[in-house]
Amino acid sequence: MIERTVFFLSDQTGVTAETLGHSLLTQFSAKKFLHVTLPFINTEDKAREAVRTINSVQKSGAPRPIVFSTLVQGEYRTILKESNGLYLDIFDAFLEPLAVELQEKPNFEPGRAHGMSDIEAYMKRIEATNYALANDDGGVSRNYDVADVILVGVSRSGKTPTCLYLALQYGVYAANYPLTDEEFESGKLPDFLLQQKDKLFGLSIDPDRLRQIRKERRPMGKYSSVQQVRYELREADKIFRRYGIPHVDTTRFSIEEISSRILNSTGVERRVRP
Amino acid sequence: MIERTVFFLSDQTGVTAETLGHSLLTQFSAKKFLHVTLPFINTEDKAREAVRTINSVQKSGAPRPIVFSTLVQGEYRTILKESNGLYLDIFDAFLEPLAVELQEKPNFEPGRAHGMSDIEAYMKRIEATNYALANDDGGVSRNYDVADVILVGVSRSGKTPTCLYLALQYGVYAANYPLTDEEFESGKLPDFLLQQKDKLFGLSIDPDRLRQIRKERRPMGKYSSVQQVRYELREADKIFRRYGIPHVDTTRFSIEEISSRILNSTGVERRVRP
Repeated sequence: MIERTVFFLSDQTGVTAETLGHSLLTQFSAKKFLHVTLPFINTEDKAREAVRTINSVQKSGAPRPIVFSTLVQGEYRTILKESNGLYLDIFDAFLEPLAVELQEKPNFEPGRAHGMSDIEAYMKRIEATNYALANDDGGVSRNYDVADVILVGVSRSGKTPTCLYLALQYGVYAANYPLTDEEFESGKLPDFLLQQKDKLFGLSIDPDRLRQIRKERRPMGKYSSVQQVRYELREADKIFRRYGIPHVDTTRFSIEEISSRILNSTGVERRVRP
Repeated sequence: MIERTVFFLSDQTGVTAETLGHSLLTQFSAKKFLHVTLPFINTEDKAREAVRTINSVQKSGAPRPIVFSTLVQGEYRTILKESNGLYLDIFDAFLEPLAVELQEKPNFEPGRAHGMSDIEAYMKRIEATNYALANDDGGVSRNYDVADVILVGVSRSGKTPTCLYLALQYGVYAANYPLTDEEFESGKLPDFLLQQKDKLFGLSIDPDRLRQIRKERRPMGKYSSVQQVRYELREADKIFRRYGIPHVDTTRFSIEEISSRILNSTGVERRVRP
């Protein structure tokens, strides 16, 4: 299959161009794409260099490259539009209608979305990440008073990556607590968790999928046995029902999807926006 | 200041709509925006409910809401376009030119960008996250053979959040090793790091900024003193120069910016795309 080269151009990190472009490209599953990010295009020289890079693809006989651009400054966009690629520009498409609607001229300053222009919002994300690390896996600090949400579930149900994503992406304070033999045998959650009952959110998972994940970590032994996995998930489910804890089955969901469902279901505010 | 309500509509997580919308809105700094994400609009009922939610804002006398939509399915988009908001649709803008260019019909399946349709790519991100956690702060595993990059720097220079971001966003295997008294006194890096010299990347930071960050963690004592912070950064810089380790000053950069610079400078491949 012939690969089509896709460029993500930005005067900053390239995250927005990548996210937008990737969303669109998943609509074309018969094609194979080669991704190239060209970030920090913030001088005329770099803009011309990017044009040369884009044009060099076509000179090699490959099909016309696709270019997703989030450059803000008009002078560099003018240069880049002269490349031979199919140029798709999010500012061309949306800035004008927004400016009309808001009756405000855009400031045309690059790099405000993924930068530190809002230092407080940025620090919230970093603090939330440190919080998630300190309160991971029933961690030492157990500083649950300030948690926005506390994820509970068996080992490898997806708690840690989800907490980290909630922190990094949205500045949400997410702790997590693993359900282990202590909870399975008593059928109860510890008091310090029940004091925060409204913050609890459960993660469940299909037994076969959990076994598969656990086997990659520890191929042998009880941890990934059919019996153990089924036992743990059954007991976890009893606990969710006993205390009326909302929960989501993570089997077929990515951390983005799990996070979005948690925020949607709990009403926890995104402290920061991506 | 009157707040303008901004909706991010999606048949999936809303991440793309949020990312795109946020990038555009940072261009209008005189306005205040109230963000509302409406994810998982995947039935006609939910589409109509979203329209009611959007229209209810204007009924309250507030200015017309702004709507960023990444819904894929035409039938729901048609319903949503009837809302009173300013409707900005990334598929309207870009799907048609892409389809023409690629000579392929879009599959119009929702939720491929932030889901698990590419399970291997998704697992790479999760594995990379587990790797970052196990190899954080010179952690126990020191499994540096498989690292794509190893960040070195003093305590609180930004190593951990950057590693986690590289893992979650791009599936990049990023370890980190903190420079401490041992390295400062000898002026040398340990052998197990030097065996991976080509993977090392340094993080530096302005002394005042570092003091500020450390003071939030431990307000008193040597850790956040002027002398200690200056000493550590001076010695770290000597080590970077001694071994020719590329480095970036993180003072004014977000984790997205630091990550983009590291990938750009080292040429480390993004294993996965957001």
